[in-house]
Amino acid sequence: MIPDEIKKFIDYFSRLPLFGPRQATRLAFYLLSLDKNEVKNLSSALGNLANLDICERCFFVKVGGQRICGICSDPARNMKNIAIVEKETDLLTFEKMNKWNGHYLILGRLAERGTLGHSERQRLEKLKERIKNELGGTADEIVIALAATAIGDFTADLIREEFKNLSKKITRLGRGLPTGGEVEFADETTLLHSFEKRS
Amino acid sequence: MIPDEIKKFIDYFSRLPLFGPRQATRLAFYLLSLDKNEVKNLSSALGNLANLDICERCFFVKVGGQRICGICSDPARNMKNIAIVEKETDLLTFEKMNKWNGHYLILGRLAERGTLGHSERQRLEKLKERIKNELGGTADEIVIALAATAIGDFTADLIREEFKNLSKKITRLGRGLPTGGEVEFADETTLLHSFEKRS
Repeated sequence: MIPDEIKKFIDYFSRLPLFGPRQATRLAFYLLSLDKNEVKNLSSALGNLANLDICERCFFVKVGGQRICGICSDPARNMKNIAIVEKETDLLTFEKMNKWNGHYLILGRLAERGTLGHSERQRLEKLKERIKNELGGTADEIVIALAATAIGDFTADLIREEFKNLSKKITRLGRGLPTGGEVEFADETTLLHSFEKRS
Repeated sequence: MIPDEIKKFIDYFSRLPLFGPRQATRLAFYLLSLDKNEVKNLSSALGNLANLDICERCFFVKVGGQRICGICSDPARNMKNIAIVEKETDLLTFEKMNKWNGHYLILGRLAERGTLGHSERQRLEKLKERIKNELGGTADEIVIALAATAIGDFTADLIREEFKNLSKKITRLGRGLPTGGEVEFADETTLLHSFEKRS
C-alpha cells in the first residue's frame, strides 16, 4: 500500500539522530511535495559527503585524496599552538571567533564516566607524536577547549598531566558570566569563577 | 576551510522542516562518522523518492508510471466509501486502524483562517467528479476525518454542505475521552462530547 521508496526512506532515516519514524515519515511526505530536482539536489548533497575523509593529523574533515585537512595544511597558521576540542562543531565555533590562528585536535566525545575512551586515548597519542616529530618535543601552547562541565574539568586535568612536559603553556577557556548574563540568575559556580576572575 | 561538500549539505538541508543550520551541521558531521556505504544508501533512499508521483484521484503517493495509487487501484476496496483526511500521515494512521476498507481524498493542509485554499477547493471538485463519474452521483458514505479543532469543525461544515446531495451519509469522527484519558484532566469540550455520547 505504501510504495517501497517511502518504506525504505523511513527505514534508513529513522536511524539518524534527530529522527524517529514519525519525523522520517513526515520528512518523506514533505520531500514528495517538493520539485523533483530539489529532491535530487538533496540526495547528491548527502551522497557527496562520502567524498570526504577524516584528517589523520587533527581528525577534522578533509577532502578525499588530500593527505591532511585545510587547516593542517594552511601555511599561514601556527602549528605550535594547538586547541583541543571535543567535536567538529566546537572547532567551527572556535573558528568563528576569528581569533585563533593555531591548529587543532578533535578529541572525540567525552565519556560520561570521566575516563577517556580508546579512540580518545589514541588521538592524544597522535598529538604527542605530532609534538615530538614536528615541533621538536615542545608546543608553545595547548588550549584545552573542553566544556565547562565536571567531565570537561576531569578530562582537562588528565590532559594537563599527560602533556605537562610537551608544551610551554597549557591553558583552559576562562569561566565567568556569559555575555548578557544576569548576576541574579547565575549559578553559584559561575558567579564564583567570575568573581575570582574580576578585573 | 570547511570543505564545499559540507557547506552545500548544510545549505540544502537547513531549508528542510525539522532542520536549522545547527541541526544540519550536526547531521553532516554525524554522517561523516558513518560508513561510506551507509551514506550512499541514505543518499539513494532520498533520491528514489523522486520516482514517486501524486495520485491524481486521491492525492496520496503513487509509484511513477502507474496511473493511480495502490489504494485507488485495489479491487478489494469499496470505492463508494470515501474518507477525507488532511494529509498523507493521517491516511497512514487511518490505515493502521485496520477497519477502513474504503477510498480516500487527501484534502491538503487546513488554512488557518478557516476558508479553503485554492488547491483544497480543486481537490474537493475532483472528488465531486469522482462521485459523478464513477458512482453515478451518490457515494454511500463520506467520513470527514479532519482534526477535532475549530478549523476542522468549520471545514467539515463546509464539506457537509457541498456534498449533501452527493452521499447517502456524511459522518465525522466521534469525539470523547481518548484511551487512557482521565476525567479529571479532560477539558470541558471533550467532557461534554463524551457525556453526550455516553452509551
